[in-house]
Amino acid sequence: MNLTERLLNRDPSALAKLISQVENRVPGYPEILDQIFSHTGHSYRIGITGPPGAGKSTLVDKLVRLLRAEGKTVGVLACDPTSPFTGGALLGDRIRMQDLVSDDGVFIRSMATRGSLGGLAKSAQEAALLLEAFGFDWIILETIGVGQVEVDIVQAADTTVLVLVPQSGDVIQAMKAGLMEIGDVFVVNKSDQGEADLAYRNLQTMLGLSMHEWMPPIVKTVASQNQGIVELRSAIERHKAYQEKNTLSHRRRVRLKAFLQMIIEEELQLQLWHSQRLKTLDAQLEQILNKHQTPYRAAKEILQSISSSLQNN
Amino acid sequence: MNLTERLLNRDPSALAKLISQVENRVPGYPEILDQIFSHTGHSYRIGITGPPGAGKSTLVDKLVRLLRAEGKTVGVLACDPTSPFTGGALLGDRIRMQDLVSDDGVFIRSMATRGSLGGLAKSAQEAALLLEAFGFDWIILETIGVGQVEVDIVQAADTTVLVLVPQSGDVIQAMKAGLMEIGDVFVVNKSDQGEADLAYRNLQTMLGLSMHEWMPPIVKTVASQNQGIVELRSAIERHKAYQEKNTLSHRRRVRLKAFLQMIIEEELQLQLWHSQRLKTLDAQLEQILNKHQTPYRAAKEILQSISSSLQNN
Repeated sequence: MNLTERLLNRDPSALAKLISQVENRVPGYPEILDQIFSHTGHSYRIGITGPPGAGKSTLVDKLVRLLRAEGKTVGVLACDPTSPFTGGALLGDRIRMQDLVSDDGVFIRSMATRGSLGGLAKSAQEAALLLEAFGFDWIILETIGVGQVEVDIVQAADTTVLVLVPQSGDVIQAMKAGLMEIGDVFVVNKSDQGEADLAYRNLQTMLGLSMHEWMPPIVKTVASQNQGIVELRSAIERHKAYQEKNTLSHRRRVRLKAFLQMIIEEELQLQLWHSQRLKTLDAQLEQILNKHQTPYRAAKEILQSISSSLQNN
Repeated sequence: MNLTERLLNRDPSALAKLISQVENRVPGYPEILDQIFSHTGHSYRIGITGPPGAGKSTLVDKLVRLLRAEGKTVGVLACDPTSPFTGGALLGDRIRMQDLVSDDGVFIRSMATRGSLGGLAKSAQEAALLLEAFGFDWIILETIGVGQVEVDIVQAADTTVLVLVPQSGDVIQAMKAGLMEIGDVFVVNKSDQGEADLAYRNLQTMLGLSMHEWMPPIVKTVASQNQGIVELRSAIERHKAYQEKNTLSHRRRVRLKAFLQMIIEEELQLQLWHSQRLKTLDAQLEQILNKHQTPYRAAKEILQSISSSLQNN
């Protein structure tokens, strides 16, 4: 059997190898993803994001155990665009999940930025498709921080959980940053510390101002003590039921569209700088260095030839 | 006088406004950058990067004071692609630099990711051009973390300083991540703590293996106590002298080329998804959702029309 067949037969080592091939953009990886595509779409995806130190990975750990106790299988992708330095920490975090590693119903994988090999958001999408084809019931996309790339990653989820802690003025920061918009479920973790009630009430007030039909539930948790995990699970379930009745197919359509655009943009990027165009670029560069040309005017001249032909398609 | 003229007359409020216009991609910003371009190229740029918590902003603070004592003017860009959450912390860090703010010879600016408004690496380059046109002797590009975006930012510097701390296994992490390649000068900060000598020796061994002509100096500092800053200053000066004799013009050429490519790619991105192409995309999307098509095959079909015309230019 080839790797793809082994994946569809639920061989974890084939899954791990295929994720690596996709991450490393091994020649032929698009065909792999096309081959497995008809087997995707049957998993439910949860995105978990929030600032560093909010206790996201402990929360994920507990949530995975709860889902396993229900008999569900779970694939976890822990995504870190700020690596390399946090990469080690991330793996360290995972050590406590080691007893889960020997559980066939769980698969845990860290993904980090791979330099110029393409965006992490795209790789995470592709890895999630592989997890779906493998047949996991649930997929968890976890991020380390909450920058733009992380937001792109969790927006590929069916339900996005935004994890905050009471101490750090997170609620205000989240609001200022427009992050309230991306959370379908909110968690105030470490709610035995600091001003948890205040944070909860602030969140409630803020979410009450929203005009959306879905009113995001707020769950207080102490992940390290396994408190509030059942409540989180049921809040996710409520959102899942709401989505399935209303917006899930639309949401998945939007996500697929964004994915298709990412594929096209990445490939176009690769094709853009062919030798003839690099020569044009170098000629303009000389002019700029001699101060006979300016960068934006040079870019415009190069773009004119490219874009006029783009418009003609 | 218009804003550009005021910038060239060293008006700090015009500088601040122009940076905002560039960050926000206000219509006409390319023309602003083209207008000031002939006034750029006379500043020396230092990039300062390293993992979070290495004490970079304290180090920058001390370095700025030293440069000011020499009578040099300094512009600082503190770049944080992992915002929004660290955005607040970053500004907090800056409060201790407040006495510097009333100094006309210093300009400090935080830059964060602005969602889809284009890459931070490009905005930082553009802000640096504005600082150069204003006439600062030195420009410091400081990053908060050390992910891919941060590496792109500091590679736009003439001298890149990689700041590590002895405690955290940073040296090993930096080596694994290929970061040794980007440092022109290394700093072991907080060198009164932990195993500073071991970290120093590890660095020395590792850098000794490099085949490059320039052997990066390693400086031990305790930034919080102003220790080692003079030594850092002179290490930067040595690299500056080396560069000016050897590789500076090449380095600036490479940087300008990368900048030009960023301009073209950003603009192309904006032009790519015009209404006709979005219709094609939607049609393919329907096919994919019905499982009559796969994402990569669909992307290929859309790309074929785009890229064949790109090749013809």
